[in-house]
Amino acid sequence: MAESALTNRHDDFPKWYQDVVAKAELADNGPVRGTMVIRPYGYAIWERIQSEIDVRIKAAGAENAYFPIFIPESYLSREAEHVEGFSPELAVVTHAGGEKLTEPVVVRPTSETVIGEFMAKWVHSHRDLPLLLNQWANVVRWEMRPRVFLRSSEFLWQEGHTAHATHEDAAAYARQIHYDVYHDFIRNVLAVPVYLGMKTQSERFAGATNTMTCEGMMGDGKALQMATSHELGQNFAKAFDITFQTEDGQSAHCFTTSWGASTRLIGGLIMAHGDDDGLVVPPRLAPLQVVVLPVRDDPEVMSAVRQIADDLRRAGVRVKVDQARGSFGRRVTDWEIKGVPVRCEVGPRDLAEGKVTIARRDSGEKVPVPLDAVVSTVHDTLETQQREILSRAETRLAERTVDVTTIAEASAAAKEGFARVSFDVLRGEGEAQLRTEAITVRCLQRADGSMPDRDDEPGLVAIVGRSY
Amino acid sequence: MAESALTNRHDDFPKWYQDVVAKAELADNGPVRGTMVIRPYGYAIWERIQSEIDVRIKAAGAENAYFPIFIPESYLSREAEHVEGFSPELAVVTHAGGEKLTEPVVVRPTSETVIGEFMAKWVHSHRDLPLLLNQWANVVRWEMRPRVFLRSSEFLWQEGHTAHATHEDAAAYARQIHYDVYHDFIRNVLAVPVYLGMKTQSERFAGATNTMTCEGMMGDGKALQMATSHELGQNFAKAFDITFQTEDGQSAHCFTTSWGASTRLIGGLIMAHGDDDGLVVPPRLAPLQVVVLPVRDDPEVMSAVRQIADDLRRAGVRVKVDQARGSFGRRVTDWEIKGVPVRCEVGPRDLAEGKVTIARRDSGEKVPVPLDAVVSTVHDTLETQQREILSRAETRLAERTVDVTTIAEASAAAKEGFARVSFDVLRGEGEAQLRTEAITVRCLQRADGSMPDRDDEPGLVAIVGRSY
Repeated sequence: MAESALTNRHDDFPKWYQDVVAKAELADNGPVRGTMVIRPYGYAIWERIQSEIDVRIKAAGAENAYFPIFIPESYLSREAEHVEGFSPELAVVTHAGGEKLTEPVVVRPTSETVIGEFMAKWVHSHRDLPLLLNQWANVVRWEMRPRVFLRSSEFLWQEGHTAHATHEDAAAYARQIHYDVYHDFIRNVLAVPVYLGMKTQSERFAGATNTMTCEGMMGDGKALQMATSHELGQNFAKAFDITFQTEDGQSAHCFTTSWGASTRLIGGLIMAHGDDDGLVVPPRLAPLQVVVLPVRDDPEVMSAVRQIADDLRRAGVRVKVDQARGSFGRRVTDWEIKGVPVRCEVGPRDLAEGKVTIARRDSGEKVPVPLDAVVSTVHDTLETQQREILSRAETRLAERTVDVTTIAEASAAAKEGFARVSFDVLRGEGEAQLRTEAITVRCLQRADGSMPDRDDEPGLVAIVGRSY
Repeated sequence: MAESALTNRHDDFPKWYQDVVAKAELADNGPVRGTMVIRPYGYAIWERIQSEIDVRIKAAGAENAYFPIFIPESYLSREAEHVEGFSPELAVVTHAGGEKLTEPVVVRPTSETVIGEFMAKWVHSHRDLPLLLNQWANVVRWEMRPRVFLRSSEFLWQEGHTAHATHEDAAAYARQIHYDVYHDFIRNVLAVPVYLGMKTQSERFAGATNTMTCEGMMGDGKALQMATSHELGQNFAKAFDITFQTEDGQSAHCFTTSWGASTRLIGGLIMAHGDDDGLVVPPRLAPLQVVVLPVRDDPEVMSAVRQIADDLRRAGVRVKVDQARGSFGRRVTDWEIKGVPVRCEVGPRDLAEGKVTIARRDSGEKVPVPLDAVVSTVHDTLETQQREILSRAETRLAERTVDVTTIAEASAAAKEGFARVSFDVLRGEGEAQLRTEAITVRCLQRADGSMPDRDDEPGLVAIVGRSY
C-alpha cells in the first residue's frame, strides 16, 4: 500500500499528529470508543520507556507489586475529593459470571483506594515504614474527547504508592521520585526539557495536598503534563485507617504519596520532536537506533549489510537490517516516518570504494564513512543527535516562554507558547478568568525556578499556557 | 509479628499451599471475590517468569503489542464455540462515564476476537504473513471457586496470536512456541518436567481445532496445566474475515494460532517444589538467589557481609543482604519460607577462621567455606541445586505415573498420581465416566511420548489424572 505524505505540521498540527500515529504504525483506535491498540513499533517504544523508568524506580527503593483491576464502588467514596474527581470517568461492572453483582465494582481509574486498604493490613510499626510500592498496570478513565496516547479511555502506566511515618519523609520521597525518576528520564532519555513546579489547588490530583508536575512544551507551543507526583497528606491514611505504632508506642496515621507516568509520554515524544517527515526518536530512547539499509537486494550488498549490523550489535547498538523489499526511496521514507535515529545506507558503488553512507534522522545530514569507521561514527552520531534534539527543544522552550505582567499579556503569549507571570496577578479571579480561554496554570515556581513548598509562599511565578 | 509454623504438606496440601502463599508474602486475596493482590516477592517471581518467557517469544520472532481490555459483546458471538465457552465467565461493563452504554462491553477473558478484528485490517497480502503478535496483559474470567494463582477472577498472562498463510505453517509455529518457549522455560528454568501432548476434543480451548498442553505433576500427585498452544484453524479467520491475497492472486482465509501462560505458573512453582519449610525456588528462576545473613549486627560481621554481597553481585548473582533485625533463627526460617536457594551465613567465630557457612535451601546441606571460595562455591551450589530440583521432580513424575489397561485401574492410579492408558479404552464413554470422578485426560501422546498430529491416530495413549 502506498502511503501518502504527512500533513504539514504547521498547517494542521492535530491532523499531522494523527498521520504520524497511523503512518509510523504506532497505534490504532480500538473498537470501544476511546480505547487504543498499541501496535508493535509503538509498544517497543513503550517497553523502552518502561525499562528506563523501572530501573530508576527500583534505584529509588520501591518494589513492584500488582493490585486488582476491580475496586468495590464503596472504596472510592471514602475519600470525598477523590470520589468527586473520578466519578464522572468511571467504568462500572454490574454483571459478572452470569449474575447481577450485589455491589457494582469499578474498573480502577487509579489505585490509591485499594492499595490504601492493603497498606493498612501490612503496616503495623514504624519499622514497616517507609513502604514503597509501584505497579505497572492498565487503568480506565472514560473520555468524552479521546485522542490516542494523550487521552484514551484505557491507558497503560506505572503508579507508585508509598507510606511514611512523617510529612517530611513523604515530601522528600515524592521529590526524590519527581527529580531522580521523572525529570531524569524525561530530560536525559526522552530529551524533553520541562518546567518542574507545583500545581495550583484547582489543578491538584483529587485527594492530594500537593501535586508536582513536569510540564513540557510541544511543537505547537501547547503544554503537556508528562508526569506527576502527589503528596496525599493523611487523607487516604485516615480514609483507609493506615496507622502505625511510633517509636514511643503511640498510634499514628501515615503520610502517603502517589506518582505516575503513562503511555501519554508517547504522545509527548511525537509532539515534542516530530517534524514534517514524521517521528524523531532520541537515540537513548529508540528501540531501534540504526537501520542498515541495502540500496538494492544484491548478494554482495546484503553480505556487507549483515556484517555491519553484527558489528553494531556487538558494540551494544540496537540495530535492524532492512529487508530490501520495494524501492529504496520508499524504504528511506518509511524509516524516516518511524524516526529511527540513524540510517546506514549500503550500495554497490560506495562499497567498491570501501564506504557506506551514514544519515542522521533529525538534521538530514548524510556523510560517506569508511567501512572500518562505521561503529565509531554511529556511536558519535547517536551521542550528538541525543544532545542536539534536547538542545532544539530547550531553545523552543526558552524562546516561546515570555515574561509578562498582566492577564491580557498572558493570554496573548499563550497563543504561541507559555507565559511566566507573578502568581499574585492570578490569585483571586485571574486563574478562573484565564480558564475561560482554555488557558491554565501549568505550574508554580519560585522566582529562581525552584520547587515551592507551599502555594502561599510570597514571590511565586506561574507558568501558564494551553495544554493537552 | 510471630509467624506460626506451616501446615504439614502431607496432612493438608491445600492448607499448606495457602500458608506458603501467605507466609512467603506472595499474595493476598483482593476485596472483590476471586481477585488477588500480588505482593512484591510474588511479583518479583512473576517478573523473572516474564523476562524468561519474553526473551524466548522474541527469539521466536513474535512482537509485543497491546489491545484494549474492553471488547464489544457482539465480537464474542461471532465464533459460536468461543462465546459458548466464555459466556459464563464474563464480567460486563454496562455503565461508563456516568451513562448506560448502548452496547455493553465485556472485560477481555482472552483476546482472539479483538485481535482477529485488527489482523483483518493489517493483513492484505501473503507478504504480510506470518503476522506474529504477543501481549502481556490482565484478563478476567469470573471464578466460582477461586484459588490464588491457580484460579483467580483476574490474572496476568501473555497471550500470543499469529496468522499464517497455510495450515502447515500455523501448525509448525504453534509447535515451535510450545517446545522452544513453554517447554524450554518450564523444564530448564522452572525445573518442572511435563508431559507434552494434545488435549481431547472435550478439553480443547473454545474455538480451537487443536490444543497442545504442558502438564506438570504437583506435590500431591495432581496435574497442573502449565501452558497451552492452540491451532485455531480458520475459525477466527472466518469469523473476523482475516483474508489475504495469495501469490497467485486469489483471496484466502488465514490460519491462526494462540498460546498463553499465566500467573498460574507461580502456583505451579509452589506446588511442584515446595516442602514443609515453605517455597523452594529453582536458582535460574529465583529473583533472589543468595541471601547473605549476618549472625548478628556487629560492625566486623556487617562489613564482611557487604563485601561478600558485592563480590557475588559482580559475579552476576542476584543477591541481597539480610539486615539483621530480629533473632538469627527467625531470620533463617523466614528466608527458608521464601525459598531463597542459598544462604551465606556470616558469624564472628567463622570469620575469625576466615570462613562462612553456605546453606542449601532444597537439601538443607550446610558447609563451611573459606572466604576466597565463596563465589565459586555459590556458583556450583546454584548449578547443582537447579539440576537436583528438576531431578527430584522427574523421579516423582516417573514413579507416580502408572501404566494401566482399564478404567478402574486408571481411577485407582489417579488417587496418587497419573495413569497412562490406551486412548482406545477411553473413546466412547470412558472419558465421560472418569470425569464423574473428577479425573480428566490431561493429554494424548503417541506410544513413544511424542506429540500426535490428530486425535484419531491409532495407538494413542492418554495421560489421565486429577487436576487443578
